[in-house]
Amino acid sequence: MSSTEQATLHGRIREELRERILGGTWQPHDRVPSESALMAQYGVSRITVRQALGELESARLIFKVPGKGSFVASGKPFQELGRLQGFAEAMNGMGHETFNRVLSLHDVAAGAQVAERLGLEPGAPVTEVRRVRYLDQQPVSLDLTWLPQRLGQRLRREELARRDIFLILENDCATPLGHADLALDAVPANAEVAGALGLPEGAPVLHIERLTHDQAGRPIDYEHLYCRSDTFQYRMRLQRR
Amino acid sequence: MSSTEQATLHGRIREELRERILGGTWQPHDRVPSESALMAQYGVSRITVRQALGELESARLIFKVPGKGSFVASGKPFQELGRLQGFAEAMNGMGHETFNRVLSLHDVAAGAQVAERLGLEPGAPVTEVRRVRYLDQQPVSLDLTWLPQRLGQRLRREELARRDIFLILENDCATPLGHADLALDAVPANAEVAGALGLPEGAPVLHIERLTHDQAGRPIDYEHLYCRSDTFQYRMRLQRR
Repeated sequence: MSSTEQATLHGRIREELRERILGGTWQPHDRVPSESALMAQYGVSRITVRQALGELESARLIFKVPGKGSFVASGKPFQELGRLQGFAEAMNGMGHETFNRVLSLHDVAAGAQVAERLGLEPGAPVTEVRRVRYLDQQPVSLDLTWLPQRLGQRLRREELARRDIFLILENDCATPLGHADLALDAVPANAEVAGALGLPEGAPVLHIERLTHDQAGRPIDYEHLYCRSDTFQYRMRLQRR
Repeated sequence: MSSTEQATLHGRIREELRERILGGTWQPHDRVPSESALMAQYGVSRITVRQALGELESARLIFKVPGKGSFVASGKPFQELGRLQGFAEAMNGMGHETFNRVLSLHDVAAGAQVAERLGLEPGAPVTEVRRVRYLDQQPVSLDLTWLPQRLGQRLRREELARRDIFLILENDCATPLGHADLALDAVPANAEVAGALGLPEGAPVLHIERLTHDQAGRPIDYEHLYCRSDTFQYRMRLQRR
């Protein structure tokens, strides 16, 4: 069997199992069929089955218990915090559906914090975007974004409904991203956040302040993200060394 | 001048500036003296001054505004989220003082979640540790930790007041850490969390679920951390590629 055929095979098995998990056919903590059962069902080698299961494990959709087999992981959708990705980019890659409701898109005079972070004079014109981001048709975050006007003027409301600002910057503005600095804390939802996310005022939300730079290290995208925690999570894997 | 002398010099300047920042002599958004002023004050080269300032910038104690100079960063203490480090290890390294109040240390029968995460049978004996962690004499997190009994029995109350469990595992139990899986969300402080941290019940706290593995990939340390967000933050830097 060629390696291409094998890649297709384990990919097909992985996608079928993924659908059963994300579609809810299998519930959190359900036992995944054994390697032998999957080998028999798909008529493939143990290597192929292990490859499919290994990839589902990497995506945290299943977890292994030594001597017991594999089980479906908790169903709360999550985004990998350790990768600098847009929301759609990250979530579509895991089989989720995303949509953005653009509350506003216009130029404003930069306040003190926005100006300082973007390296501009206070009062300089910046583009402000307010979006509610939907995951599988549920609102999960309110994102407030400020960009230098020269980049912001490339944004269109209808495009922002589907596309990440990161991808628009990279693909339409020829501005590849470099690094981002994040600060995380928990805050009570204010009236705007609560209204946008369908939460009671004061409900705890995860707040991420993110300043993204271009490859030359210039700040180009400053954001405050307010994320529901009841239906959404961030995850990451760290190595000790 | 030898590179050793230069290392000593820029290190000394860095530490003096760090003390002025952490000690409050310089307040957030104060302007740091210019490179020329620091060169004159310390009688050193521009390279030495830049090295000291660069290291303070990496530690996020100062930030640069192009054409304006360097400024003292916001004073909220933070831990680097992107490094798998114990709290004392991380915070002492940035010049903060830490202390742990051990609320309890005893063996319990593993509940369903703890057993599953540690790969044990439900009801198997595990060591449970409840600690309040203090930063510069203020409580910042309530940490609940479960370890397999064979490791937990090495823990002593008086040692836990000063030392991270990570360091006890690595240095006293000869169990080098491998990777950890983290999940982050925001939750309302329950009565125990609120009491330990001096917050009103329902106040938003950052919740980190962390499962740390040894180098063979065996889960050895399962934790729920509840962190104040009004006086403490997590930060991290991400690269796009």
